[in-house]
Amino acid sequence: MKLYQTTQAPNPRRVRMFLAEKGISDIEFIELNLQRGDNLSPEFRQKNPLGKVPVLELDDGTCICETVAICRYFEEIQPEPCLMGHTAVEKATIEMWQRWAEFYFMLPTGMGFQHSTGFFKDRMHPVKEWGEECIKNAPKFFHIMEQQLAKHEFLAGAEFSIADIVAFCTIPFGKAVIGMQIPDACTHVQRWYEAVKQRPSAKA
Amino acid sequence: MKLYQTTQAPNPRRVRMFLAEKGISDIEFIELNLQRGDNLSPEFRQKNPLGKVPVLELDDGTCICETVAICRYFEEIQPEPCLMGHTAVEKATIEMWQRWAEFYFMLPTGMGFQHSTGFFKDRMHPVKEWGEECIKNAPKFFHIMEQQLAKHEFLAGAEFSIADIVAFCTIPFGKAVIGMQIPDACTHVQRWYEAVKQRPSAKA
Repeated sequence: MKLYQTTQAPNPRRVRMFLAEKGISDIEFIELNLQRGDNLSPEFRQKNPLGKVPVLELDDGTCICETVAICRYFEEIQPEPCLMGHTAVEKATIEMWQRWAEFYFMLPTGMGFQHSTGFFKDRMHPVKEWGEECIKNAPKFFHIMEQQLAKHEFLAGAEFSIADIVAFCTIPFGKAVIGMQIPDACTHVQRWYEAVKQRPSAKA
Repeated sequence: MKLYQTTQAPNPRRVRMFLAEKGISDIEFIELNLQRGDNLSPEFRQKNPLGKVPVLELDDGTCICETVAICRYFEEIQPEPCLMGHTAVEKATIEMWQRWAEFYFMLPTGMGFQHSTGFFKDRMHPVKEWGEECIKNAPKFFHIMEQQLAKHEFLAGAEFSIADIVAFCTIPFGKAVIGMQIPDACTHVQRWYEAVKQRPSAKA
């Protein structure tokens, strides 16, 4: 299996962290340079018509795009350690938190970066006012996390899950690209962040 | 079980269509008026801190938010007819298409509507230029769909799935709110759309 990815980008990091938690290491990593546009070539668009990383290419040539779909594939072929839930309620609760962290935290962080800096202005139309709005909105999610982490060890409950991975990967990315910081008042987020940072998978 | 929802909104429609495909009907629907702000009350925010519909409330009071997490719950408690895949590759492929249809079709359609019209301007800051950009980008997904539907009966392959539901529900919504039309050149999308419209679940 091959994973087309970019080491510095947050979505491939989510997959690497997921694989490290699973202890899966028999994957060949193919590094793409996004700024150079490696992901926009006709060859790569055969693998992903949207031209995004990461892409998982199976040995038969089947390509799985989209971070969470790739994680789902690994969760199915190697269920333990479980990162997406065992029961129906666990699966749904983890997916709820995973999606909240994507839609209300990682997505505005990424759009805030792209639209305020024009980093990909060769391939998209940046809207500065929208970037600023996203930068204002993304940190609001810390307070949603704080409420939950005051009651639970991890984002979706008692067990570490894919929801923690997406929220965790957003934080250093947000710090680097839009100067986002965990608010001082969010002591439970701080506790959780430091704990997740100690996991070997955080270095993947 | 109770489903807090809004009949006219596209996300609750996705859940109703999913339930209709499954033949699940023992759900109490609680209608919320979004424009009046029923979803922003302290009581509703106890169920969903983000204040969004739909929310599924289980008999023990557990609340599952997020359309796809709600669908996942029903897929788990009643696997057939299967709408999210049987094998690892099927599950991942369906989730890939579901997410593409969400991120590159439904999301820009919804943002195009909200930002260009200011429909929810009492609770968000609309950015007109961003709305116009979204309205320009959303229809590009028809061409991604066209390539796929030229080769396959449904969006994720030979079987109807949750990916078809999200793409299908986006089309009348996009027509109503931003005047989006299936391009004449996309004959396979037209064929697929008419076929899905004939399913009894399309009326749910």
